[in-house]
Amino acid sequence: MSPKPVNAIAIHSIPDVNPEDNIPEMILDAVRETGLELMDRDVLVIASKIVSKSEDRIVHASAIEVSKQAEKIAEKNNFDPIHVEIALREANEVINSDGVLITETHFGLVCNFSGVDKSNAPEGAYILLPENPDRSAERILSILSEKTGLQLAVIISDTQGRPWRKGSVNIAIGCAGINAYKHNKGRRDLYGRILQRSSVCQIDEIASLAEPLMGQAGERTPVVVVRGYEYSKGNEKATDINRPKSEDLFR
Amino acid sequence: MSPKPVNAIAIHSIPDVNPEDNIPEMILDAVRETGLELMDRDVLVIASKIVSKSEDRIVHASAIEVSKQAEKIAEKNNFDPIHVEIALREANEVINSDGVLITETHFGLVCNFSGVDKSNAPEGAYILLPENPDRSAERILSILSEKTGLQLAVIISDTQGRPWRKGSVNIAIGCAGINAYKHNKGRRDLYGRILQRSSVCQIDEIASLAEPLMGQAGERTPVVVVRGYEYSKGNEKATDINRPKSEDLFR
Repeated sequence: MSPKPVNAIAIHSIPDVNPEDNIPEMILDAVRETGLELMDRDVLVIASKIVSKSEDRIVHASAIEVSKQAEKIAEKNNFDPIHVEIALREANEVINSDGVLITETHFGLVCNFSGVDKSNAPEGAYILLPENPDRSAERILSILSEKTGLQLAVIISDTQGRPWRKGSVNIAIGCAGINAYKHNKGRRDLYGRILQRSSVCQIDEIASLAEPLMGQAGERTPVVVVRGYEYSKGNEKATDINRPKSEDLFR
Repeated sequence: MSPKPVNAIAIHSIPDVNPEDNIPEMILDAVRETGLELMDRDVLVIASKIVSKSEDRIVHASAIEVSKQAEKIAEKNNFDPIHVEIALREANEVINSDGVLITETHFGLVCNFSGVDKSNAPEGAYILLPENPDRSAERILSILSEKTGLQLAVIISDTQGRPWRKGSVNIAIGCAGINAYKHNKGRRDLYGRILQRSSVCQIDEIASLAEPLMGQAGERTPVVVVRGYEYSKGNEKATDINRPKSEDLFR
């Protein structure tokens, strides 16, 4: 038997998001306008940018005083000092500041510039990642579930680079209603042997799956419905993906 | 306007692959049996394992003499010495051998154990990655194109871990008929500003997209058709994803 197809469907007509906007309500309105009917086990992949905007995670250049440390890093790399300063404020730790600014964010994500971004931000403004994307996902899911009565899942995604592979891919920075991993432990391979250990990061794969429909530029399709993915449910969150410092071979 | 949906469709009934088997012919037979009609711009994502098998990239334990270096690494980490030995033979360089065996393969991929795998291999055998996955993809595509007259693309995928994120995802190790990246350079963001530089690794995303239908265990669905993805064509290959050593901050 062949598994069912997996589909990714873009939700269009989501308007510009402003602080205090109710993302789940906006999504449900847009789903209706798209002519789509949500179904049990649909996964809604939401670009972090609109979640950040709804949570007022926007900082204006005029509000920022640049520290000595930020100035030094900016000068060395020819970076925007304000961008560096905000990234440092969002970071637990700077991992590498040599041509990049790899940090660990307060919620444990290792990424460039703490995920602080200027693109798709108003002039002079910087968009920060949601403060706690797993919690944001929970909040959005709980309203979606209440309004629809459906068993849905939410993934908050962001586009990030990788240390050994050039280019970026969409990854999951928050989730709710879905486990971070599919665990293959105890399953058998083609030759009937039990697989020792194999955990696929299903929420990262679903985030990647949604990206082609989201786009990086101003496509205004920040929400994609993924349907048909046989995902595992559980309590693992996106923060469980972060490799603890003690297991990180490169720190 | 909403972008078209992206679909991933598993091709079932692909039989066990043996050396010298003609993968493109097997795929076309299986596509017919699945009742699917291939279309222009379909991407066929093919699990590296069947490509390796068709190229006889299988090594038997009995044929391997373990070197001093492999013995040392195996002992330190409680690894299978033969597995280590084969991984070293497939590597340009060992990057880390402390609890892992991160290497750079001869074709430039940084991964664990040079991608040498025991799961889904016959007893006592080890499956190596294809010697040159981009070339394998070209070869498969050229036969598929000739037989179908369609404009198709091929991605050879493998499941790999990541340094800062736990769990594995499917990535592209070879491609043909599709560019490695989508380049957003010159496109505009929501506020009309030109994006400085943003390259999405579309072939990694498509590999991730296909994984849920491939599975890690013995599902026998090593080929997935991805349809509706508006990919860029070009000459960048999967090897162009590998970050050169000089740009690798962690070597």
